Amino acid sequence: MLLIRGGTVVTAETAHRADVLCDDARRIVAVGPDLEAPSGCDTLDAGGLLVMPGGIDPHTHMEMPFMGSVASEDFYTGTSAGVAGGTTTIIDFVIPEPGHSLLGAWKDWRRKAEKSVSDYSFHVAVTHWDEKVHEDMATLTRDCGVNSFKHFMAYKNALMVDDDVLLHSISRALELGALCNIHAENGDAVAYLQADLLKRGVTGPQAHPISRPPSVEGEAAQRVIAIAGLLGAPIYIVHVSTEEAAAAIAAARARGQRVYGEVLAQHLVIDDSVYADPNWLGAAQHVMSPPFRPKHHQKALWAGLASGQLQTTATDHCCFCAGQKEQGLNDFTKIPNGTPGIEDRMSVLWHHGVRTGKLTPQEFVAITSTNTAKIFNIHPRKGSVSAGADADLVLWDPQASRTVSAKTHHQNVDYNIYEGMTLTGLARYTISGGKIAWADNDLRVTRGAGRYVERPCFSPDMQAAIHRKSTP
Amino acid sequence: MLLIRGGTVVTAETAHRADVLCDDARRIVAVGPDLEAPSGCDTLDAGGLLVMPGGIDPHTHMEMPFMGSVASEDFYTGTSAGVAGGTTTIIDFVIPEPGHSLLGAWKDWRRKAEKSVSDYSFHVAVTHWDEKVHEDMATLTRDCGVNSFKHFMAYKNALMVDDDVLLHSISRALELGALCNIHAENGDAVAYLQADLLKRGVTGPQAHPISRPPSVEGEAAQRVIAIAGLLGAPIYIVHVSTEEAAAAIAAARARGQRVYGEVLAQHLVIDDSVYADPNWLGAAQHVMSPPFRPKHHQKALWAGLASGQLQTTATDHCCFCAGQKEQGLNDFTKIPNGTPGIEDRMSVLWHHGVRTGKLTPQEFVAITSTNTAKIFNIHPRKGSVSAGADADLVLWDPQASRTVSAKTHHQNVDYNIYEGMTLTGLARYTISGGKIAWADNDLRVTRGAGRYVERPCFSPDMQAAIHRKSTP
Amino acid sequence: MLLIRGGTVVTAETAHRADVLCDDARRIVAVGPDLEAPSGCDTLDAGGLLVMPGGIDPHTHMEMPFMGSVASEDFYTGTSAGVAGGTTTIIDFVIPEPGHSLLGAWKDWRRKAEKSVSDYSFHVAVTHWDEKVHEDMATLTRDCGVNSFKHFMAYKNALMVDDDVLLHSISRALELGALCNIHAENGDAVAYLQADLLKRGVTGPQAHPISRPPSVEGEAAQRVIAIAGLLGAPIYIVHVSTEEAAAAIAAARARGQRVYGEVLAQHLVIDDSVYADPNWLGAAQHVMSPPFRPKHHQKALWAGLASGQLQTTATDHCCFCAGQKEQGLNDFTKIPNGTPGIEDRMSVLWHHGVRTGKLTPQEFVAITSTNTAKIFNIHPRKGSVSAGADADLVLWDPQASRTVSAKTHHQNVDYNIYEGMTLTGLARYTISGGKIAWADNDLRVTRGAGRYVERPCFSPDMQAAIHRKSTP
Amino acid sequence: MLLIRGGTVVTAETAHRADVLCDDARRIVAVGPDLEAPSGCDTLDAGGLLVMPGGIDPHTHMEMPFMGSVASEDFYTGTSAGVAGGTTTIIDFVIPEPGHSLLGAWKDWRRKAEKSVSDYSFHVAVTHWDEKVHEDMATLTRDCGVNSFKHFMAYKNALMVDDDVLLHSISRALELGALCNIHAENGDAVAYLQADLLKRGVTGPQAHPISRPPSVEGEAAQRVIAIAGLLGAPIYIVHVSTEEAAAAIAAARARGQRVYGEVLAQHLVIDDSVYADPNWLGAAQHVMSPPFRPKHHQKALWAGLASGQLQTTATDHCCFCAGQKEQGLNDFTKIPNGTPGIEDRMSVLWHHGVRTGKLTPQEFVAITSTNTAKIFNIHPRKGSVSAGADADLVLWDPQASRTVSAKTHHQNVDYNIYEGMTLTGLARYTISGGKIAWADNDLRVTRGAGRYVERPCFSPDMQAAIHRKSTP
Repeated sequence: MLLIRGGTVVTAETAHRADVLCDDARRIVAVGPDLEAPSGCDTLDAGGLLVMPGGIDPHTHMEMPFMGSVASEDFYTGTSAGVAGGTTTIIDFVIPEPGHSLLGAWKDWRRKAEKSVSDYSFHVAVTHWDEKVHEDMATLTRDCGVNSFKHFMAYKNALMVDDDVLLHSISRALELGALCNIHAENGDAVAYLQADLLKRGVTGPQAHPISRPPSVEGEAAQRVIAIAGLLGAPIYIVHVSTEEAAAAIAAARARGQRVYGEVLAQHLVIDDSVYADPNWLGAAQHVMSPPFRPKHHQKALWAGLASGQLQTTATDHCCFCAGQKEQGLNDFTKIPNGTPGIEDRMSVLWHHGVRTGKLTPQEFVAITSTNTAKIFNIHPRKGSVSAGADADLVLWDPQASRTVSAKTHHQNVDYNIYEGMTLTGLARYTISGGKIAWADNDLRVTRGAGRYVERPCFSPDMQAAIHRKSTP
Repeated sequence: MLLIRGGTVVTAETAHRADVLCDDARRIVAVGPDLEAPSGCDTLDAGGLLVMPGGIDPHTHMEMPFMGSVASEDFYTGTSAGVAGGTTTIIDFVIPEPGHSLLGAWKDWRRKAEKSVSDYSFHVAVTHWDEKVHEDMATLTRDCGVNSFKHFMAYKNALMVDDDVLLHSISRALELGALCNIHAENGDAVAYLQADLLKRGVTGPQAHPISRPPSVEGEAAQRVIAIAGLLGAPIYIVHVSTEEAAAAIAAARARGQRVYGEVLAQHLVIDDSVYADPNWLGAAQHVMSPPFRPKHHQKALWAGLASGQLQTTATDHCCFCAGQKEQGLNDFTKIPNGTPGIEDRMSVLWHHGVRTGKLTPQEFVAITSTNTAKIFNIHPRKGSVSAGADADLVLWDPQASRTVSAKTHHQNVDYNIYEGMTLTGLARYTISGGKIAWADNDLRVTRGAGRYVERPCFSPDMQAAIHRKSTP
Repeated sequence: MLLIRGGTVVTAETAHRADVLCDDARRIVAVGPDLEAPSGCDTLDAGGLLVMPGGIDPHTHMEMPFMGSVASEDFYTGTSAGVAGGTTTIIDFVIPEPGHSLLGAWKDWRRKAEKSVSDYSFHVAVTHWDEKVHEDMATLTRDCGVNSFKHFMAYKNALMVDDDVLLHSISRALELGALCNIHAENGDAVAYLQADLLKRGVTGPQAHPISRPPSVEGEAAQRVIAIAGLLGAPIYIVHVSTEEAAAAIAAARARGQRVYGEVLAQHLVIDDSVYADPNWLGAAQHVMSPPFRPKHHQKALWAGLASGQLQTTATDHCCFCAGQKEQGLNDFTKIPNGTPGIEDRMSVLWHHGVRTGKLTPQEFVAITSTNTAKIFNIHPRKGSVSAGADADLVLWDPQASRTVSAKTHHQNVDYNIYEGMTLTGLARYTISGGKIAWADNDLRVTRGAGRYVERPCFSPDMQAAIHRKSTP
Repeated sequence: MLLIRGGTVVTAETAHRADVLCDDARRIVAVGPDLEAPSGCDTLDAGGLLVMPGGIDPHTHMEMPFMGSVASEDFYTGTSAGVAGGTTTIIDFVIPEPGHSLLGAWKDWRRKAEKSVSDYSFHVAVTHWDEKVHEDMATLTRDCGVNSFKHFMAYKNALMVDDDVLLHSISRALELGALCNIHAENGDAVAYLQADLLKRGVTGPQAHPISRPPSVEGEAAQRVIAIAGLLGAPIYIVHVSTEEAAAAIAAARARGQRVYGEVLAQHLVIDDSVYADPNWLGAAQHVMSPPFRPKHHQKALWAGLASGQLQTTATDHCCFCAGQKEQGLNDFTKIPNGTPGIEDRMSVLWHHGVRTGKLTPQEFVAITSTNTAKIFNIHPRKGSVSAGADADLVLWDPQASRTVSAKTHHQNVDYNIYEGMTLTGLARYTISGGKIAWADNDLRVTRGAGRYVERPCFSPDMQAAIHRKSTP
């Protein structure tokens, strides 16, 4: 057992001085002032620290096969890096090859993830539509603890689905009480612009953002919101990076539609000037989709989070090393898309969000953990500090600083997009499953200690949506 | 002591089976499954019921002197009616006559409120500006537990303040860590339109909404949001009744400004067709400001609440009986403005909100109680079901129905604007200060049992705003 | 020669007393006060009348093969009906079957149109994409007087094109200096909703609007605007029927994008209550796409026209008689889509627009004639009253009234959607090619008197767009 | 007489080769191809030139007494500079001191303006409200050719009027068929921010834009639009400088309200970086209200003009020399507000608007001349090239360039805010009242040659608004 003593418990709701007692079954058993330590209980001094729910990153791609390569970060290294940054749960993506079985892919990913050091769960991607997909969705929700399905409106001739698939899949998910995730970029437009750029001899990474301008994302967000609106289905739009998409989500919500938006930490603080880097690799390391944007978009993202119109933060953690990025040396469309970031998300949010007064500490907890747990229906097991919840906690030092570097990070990738950035606010201790997994710069994780988290369907929000649909 | 057993505790965050134990010092001492009853403890069976934080109504006017009359409902009857409907805390308004002392008025209201049966607190209105007001604001925040100040942009030649007063008062409040409330209607425009209608011989209550059309509210909301934006100050707009004002708030939030909006239960379900009532009194009983609106505005209000862009619900409970309303028999501008509603707010919200799928039960708790407690900085003392919180609870029966009538209500006024409406979802028991104050239709309140609730300044949101202002 | 004497010339710009002299070569030769009549010149007394440019209807479908039927109105009867209502030019649509030659279809339509009594021109539809289409577009613009191409985002498995075709075709048209027209409805969504309705046994015409709700149009408008924005190409959205689409156009224009919107007269005054007609045929006669909308959309359309954000009015004149509509007796998706209206457009606009103060007479001329002539680059030949312009005029009686009826109209179809509507403002005389073709209720048209109007590419707006694209 | 031969006549509607014949009574008598020169007629070769209506600047302040100084430019020098730049008509402002007679002030300004070299007209400011103002408005419209009244929402304790005055004055003007102009900035907010800055010791010109941020203008625009909307009255907002105000206007128009917006040439191309000029005078020379704005606002202004949501361009020409500006050396609030620009407006618009493809040449004519003539009801006398119109023309060389400098300009002020800017597109000849007043860099004006232009009330737009108000 572990007693965390003397800290300030900060939740999405409130902040108060309280001790937290964790048992050996990975649970929190008590939260309150001046708890007595059971005999044999370890004690951790949280004086001066904030005791918060461990971070949840709902968007990672560990060891993902993509664009002819496989992401360098695996479930062991990736979840370890997460723990070093205060993140104790990830929701990764099962991505079946088009035409392949959803269920089969889910089994593959389960196997790959067994080495995780902290808890994990899976969204499953729908990349085509047929009767088998229709059936697999039922099986996955009923038997496999999956309550969310992912759809790509981009990556033409690969993962992209058209409006017809979206209509069928979102409708099916609603029926099952599951939530659909959407990568919103117009894949036809991207493909057209890519071809046009290549034809004109523009082949370097600076072409990447030109091939996917903000309106390509805004359009797709509008479209899928309209489609979901027709069906009365909640949806969750991943990696919102533009004011256009943020505005589309806000407008839908102002019409009473349940639409959620996720923001990547990197889009909040890095802008499209990175593509002007004369060093090819420097620019290529920032090739991800959606790309980094002109600076003014950041304001809309921060305000979206502060106002509650965007609810979660993530990383889309997807790591490719120099040799992998170099696949696209002569053709930017072949650079594997993705950037690392799981280790730094929470510090980036604290430093740039809380310390500037954009967010309260409570809002920080909401957008790094609690909202995600609620939307994906694992709250209060995750995302809360309360008796009965999983003992996944981060003990946050709001005053301490660190300088980010690939030299010292725990991510299995040869660069860090925040290289050199000094961030105030860091995880002093991370507790995963009731155990200290990170203690003052010392990583104490155990391969395979993480468990698969089943997520039940029919969250309160899904229930309300279904109920509303059937109410005249 | 009181043990509430077998219910489902529903908070703004989550729903779970748990018992709740209240002590004799008006506090909740434990929340958890299968709590043991201390000896001598009373037990209340909450089987089939939802145990929720007692409602907070942040906008009431008990025994208010207004327009030459005094509201018929006093603090005793008014808080009693609240308890009958599940509301256990009110925040009423201290309204000094223009030119009079804020502090003096606060003392008057303290005295009037001593007869309350449940807890109460006060916003204090700023109706003019001078050095004394500037000083009184400091005193009230420092010594009197006041953390919010009210401003009327309407009621010309009475309570109305101009932009200059708004600038000074909002700025002063920010300095003190207090929040400004705003009644947003353009008083010059209302006065102009009233005079024009009277000149044209239109004197009946049907003229009331014509004299304050939606744009009169939208304009004022826009204006005060702009003013607060210049100062970097959060504001709280009371009784948002139009899509124009709701949109102005959402737009401000999307720019990163902290603006809160309150909705009255009656605006959500009653529209402006009431003014067409050929019975003068029927129409006059609905004269309040802002008036009831064309039906399509309701959609924006519901969506605002569901999306989190509007945060609280209230009643603006302000009761005038037939004889009082009849002051305006020959001149609609003399009809005392106000409608009752404190007793029915929660049932209206449940029936029309939760049962139609517009709101989840958790969202219901948020907008009837928790959000208000947070915004006015009395959370988690109020608005939560947690150890240490005040033992103010409502045991909600989500299936039972009742039909509203002035004949049976507990409000001290001779009509009910929901007369004849059947509502499903009602307070089976209400616990106030750890005592059962309402039990299955039996009102067991004690005159004077309510306490004055001091509200500290510098809520987390105010702190963030102040911090942000000083961050380059 | 013909001298029109004593009228008030009203143009899109101004109104002034002036005579108008037309020669025998179909041209206006002089406009001015007190013109002298050349010898042998006929004189027409226009006292009390407004002399305006003849109407241009940019959206008709004469004798169109569609949904297994052929529209009952042919070019002879259709242009005659136009003349009776003051319309002297139509732009009809050449619609090649998917996979067929654009050029071949254009030739077919030229042949069909030879019987027209007044001038006509053609948009040509792009319904698929390949090298031949790419080439035909060049030929049509270079040799055939075509400067506009039409695209359907609806009618899945028939005329619908996907985003990839839109990208290629709009880009190609820009290169050629031609303008793309778009029917904006999401065809996948319509097909999904149609199938869903049929599956649920909802087969009558009341299902038609449910299968194409407003957001289906708003989405498609947003999408094609985004696509055109990527390419820097102006576009023209036909039959805008919703506030969503109107708002999308206005928003694009506020970003500096050149987007035009056309409104059908019938959408301005008829709402979706027509589908509740218990008489199957009555409802079926109103089946067109986009369908009639809830009434509040009309406000946005009128305001769009008055503000200049929507520029033109048309009819989508497409006639199917009872027997044809009855193809869909058991399946609403088989009812041929279309409504008549060419004869009444101008009276509807005058009566409901000018007489209510929504539009000035000058704005009436702009939206019934001049703006269309400018956008499709036949101004000042068409759409103006000036020396050198075509002598196509309407002598408008702003005070006279008529009651619409299929019994008396000149359209070759067995119903009139304005049946029984009394309209003030009518064409007292219509001059087509310098000849009186309609005189006080007497139709004096000549089969084949109409000429094909060649429209050159590179209108001023297209030139500016091309110029802007190449300016850093 | 004067025959302008061989040019391309460009109007707001169209462009075509035509000659233009002017008589000796200051009128155009013929426009057409190959006009014959009457005997004794002078001929001007316009080969390669565009013959356009002379510019109209609807916003100038010649020899205006303001902030303790008098603008250095008088009606003689100012109209001369206008002619040198292609502007042949100004509408200046009669500004009575608060409490003084409107009629008396109008007489003063008439006298001052007699020295003008080209035509002029007057808006009259309403700076307070009483019965006399009410009467004077009638006299001015009936007897003095005034059809527009100006209102300042800024300049507290000087020209500012409150909402009550706006309501009365706009209502009165509507009754008289006259249009209200509005300077939209919240004067209370400006005064508050100025005092706050001075209190904090920020006294230099860099404080000027901080004291009137964009939202101060956006708020006031919203407010006056709401007020005018209540009254059903068209309004004209002068010097729109922000996207907030532009959006407010567009939104009002999309609701069907007649609102016009004017843009100053300088706001289109100069941004707020000028206030960072370390040279006090350099910064002070840019002190005007509204101030120069962050660059992104320019996009909204250009798009507003191109889309027709903003209709006119002006200069707010108001000149103060170094010694005058230096009144405010120690206090930025004492720097006389104003910048010169009448001479360069048209070149700035052509160079930055037409040459970049943002505007067509026709749109250029519309926004520099024709729209203004229509809105202020002097079209087609002004703003058109047609028989019967005033012979006020500019012969524009679209290819020639000039570099702006105070050393060479004709404005009576010691600086030019476009100093050093090279502009392509200039007035080769300017014809004023049928006489060549500017010929290839040679100013040939005559003191007093300008006439006062009476403007009748009840423009078509005002008529429509009045009609609409009375239509149920």
